[in-house]
Amino acid sequence: MWRGGALSGARMAYETWGTLNKARDNALLLFTGLSPSAHAAASPLDTSEGWWEGMVGAKLAIDTERFFVICVNSLGSCFGSTGPASLNPATAQPYRLEFPDLSIEDIARAGFETVRSLGISRLDTVMGPSLGGMVVLAYAALFPNAARRMVCISGTAAAAPFAIALRSIQRETITSDPDWAGGNYPPERPPATGQRLARKLGTVTYRSAAEWQQRFGREPIRADMEGRDPFSSEFAVQGYLETLARRFVSAFDANCYLYLSRSMDRFDLAVHGDPVAVFRRAQLERALVIGVQSDLLFSVSEQQAVARFLEAAGTPTRFAPLPCIEGHDAFLVDIKTFGDEIGAFLSGEEKPGRN
Amino acid sequence: MWRGGALSGARMAYETWGTLNKARDNALLLFTGLSPSAHAAASPLDTSEGWWEGMVGAKLAIDTERFFVICVNSLGSCFGSTGPASLNPATAQPYRLEFPDLSIEDIARAGFETVRSLGISRLDTVMGPSLGGMVVLAYAALFPNAARRMVCISGTAAAAPFAIALRSIQRETITSDPDWAGGNYPPERPPATGQRLARKLGTVTYRSAAEWQQRFGREPIRADMEGRDPFSSEFAVQGYLETLARRFVSAFDANCYLYLSRSMDRFDLAVHGDPVAVFRRAQLERALVIGVQSDLLFSVSEQQAVARFLEAAGTPTRFAPLPCIEGHDAFLVDIKTFGDEIGAFLSGEEKPGRN
Repeated sequence: MWRGGALSGARMAYETWGTLNKARDNALLLFTGLSPSAHAAASPLDTSEGWWEGMVGAKLAIDTERFFVICVNSLGSCFGSTGPASLNPATAQPYRLEFPDLSIEDIARAGFETVRSLGISRLDTVMGPSLGGMVVLAYAALFPNAARRMVCISGTAAAAPFAIALRSIQRETITSDPDWAGGNYPPERPPATGQRLARKLGTVTYRSAAEWQQRFGREPIRADMEGRDPFSSEFAVQGYLETLARRFVSAFDANCYLYLSRSMDRFDLAVHGDPVAVFRRAQLERALVIGVQSDLLFSVSEQQAVARFLEAAGTPTRFAPLPCIEGHDAFLVDIKTFGDEIGAFLSGEEKPGRN
Repeated sequence: MWRGGALSGARMAYETWGTLNKARDNALLLFTGLSPSAHAAASPLDTSEGWWEGMVGAKLAIDTERFFVICVNSLGSCFGSTGPASLNPATAQPYRLEFPDLSIEDIARAGFETVRSLGISRLDTVMGPSLGGMVVLAYAALFPNAARRMVCISGTAAAAPFAIALRSIQRETITSDPDWAGGNYPPERPPATGQRLARKLGTVTYRSAAEWQQRFGREPIRADMEGRDPFSSEFAVQGYLETLARRFVSAFDANCYLYLSRSMDRFDLAVHGDPVAVFRRAQLERALVIGVQSDLLFSVSEQQAVARFLEAAGTPTRFAPLPCIEGHDAFLVDIKTFGDEIGAFLSGEEKPGRN
């Protein structure tokens, strides 16, 4: 692992769409944000809706008739890839906090090894949003010439203190929950209260004040969603947060969340050297950097910084600061606007520079 | 109380600076944000630094050689005014959750009664920031002609869903702490973990991402501030939040916090009628509305809405959207910029309209 320690027999879960061509040069590797699985879109093997449905598919922006798309579940997550909730072969118990320190670099490397195991030596494109937007930068830093193109969506070259502060509060709501039990909670009794609170704070900050206003205003909560304590829930926005929070508790392992969240705080591309030199070594042919002006967590100025490093390294780069009001999560919501940018880039029709 | 229930024998804590003139027409009533006491500035009776030191005093923006300044501790708070931590005379026990529902309107009325008890029938100016910026609007709505001028700082005419969401998460961190005990914690064992988390989230959102970047960047935490759990504290920003959070636990009562926080969510000037009609009835001679462009919680567009209501009501109004980067708390930090606006307004030198 990047910060020391090792995993033996680690597994990676991934899904693919489309067909690898004979030249093996049409592969697109997709990393995810903090919480999704590798199921980016419906497929014959799993017809359920994916986390980027409408973006990945035949004749869509990420066109599976052209690309062999590989989406990996991040190392450290809990949807098939090895993580803190997985069994440690040495003890036959879950790793829990015995899992080694996890870095964005480890997530990148696990994706790289997955691609290599498929007999692909160079990607057409490496792409990722949010946490995945950090991972693609680590990928470029660690594996020069391993991808022809890069798409960095709502990421950053170095976690900012505002995002660090918010993520560390989320982690502390979990570790403060007595049910966390120092990480040793039984699977059937997770730190549900802490996880609920962490997810609520995440959800609020993944969007924007303007969007909450537009969606909820001061609409009162539905009677069946009213909370038990007199200080909790009077407004529809609170009911919405509660619904998403409960869903998250049953879907995601708390220790995995803690490891992945901390890996984001620690990410700083500059540990690999001057970012311009890093990108020069990476030998990318082209890059697309997408930011969203209403993003509270990964500010558009951070994305602009990534684009400037790339340009200074001589990589033809398009920087798209999008006017979406959905905040950090816009890539999941405004499929049309993001799809237009990504589709144009992948088909080689984008205009370098800033729109 | 505005929503029903009654308090008997309620007390109000206040401090004054300057001298009431013979005409009794130079009084300036100052409401506070959620957590301060009535001690806005040092005085001969209490020489400790106040929460608005540098703003209130001789020859300062709020000039105590000219004005008789009264600052009240909000009803429902815990610095001398009656609140949930006060003894209920009927039971000789703290009110705790037996305290009646608290509204912004109750805080306004308690200030109004304080002023009346001093023999003042009409204020020169009613002023307040944050929670106090809601209170001054309620004051204008409830007590027509009770103030000649109004200064609304970083307030809003109706709590927005983004701020409601963040405040309700803060309240839930407290009510989820087993030590809250349904509100019945003994004073020596408050829900410290919940209060710490609530304050951390408050502190993060009271400032702006740009300011955190400027102040802390990715500076590592001081060794003596490192947390006990492996997921908490690696960066200086986290140590800063922890320091402020601990201070808050020892300074503020959790139930008072819950009541005051909820009162903000519930505030909506429109319950008093069309805001333009409300302000017409209020008979203000002039108004100053200050907003801060980097304010995440009370957006500058909300302050602009207040200014527009006032203008539509025929009140000569100055709207000052300030470019400070300190976010919602800028009024506490950038004394120079705020002092210039407030001083010019109070001396009658401000330009109506927008700067």
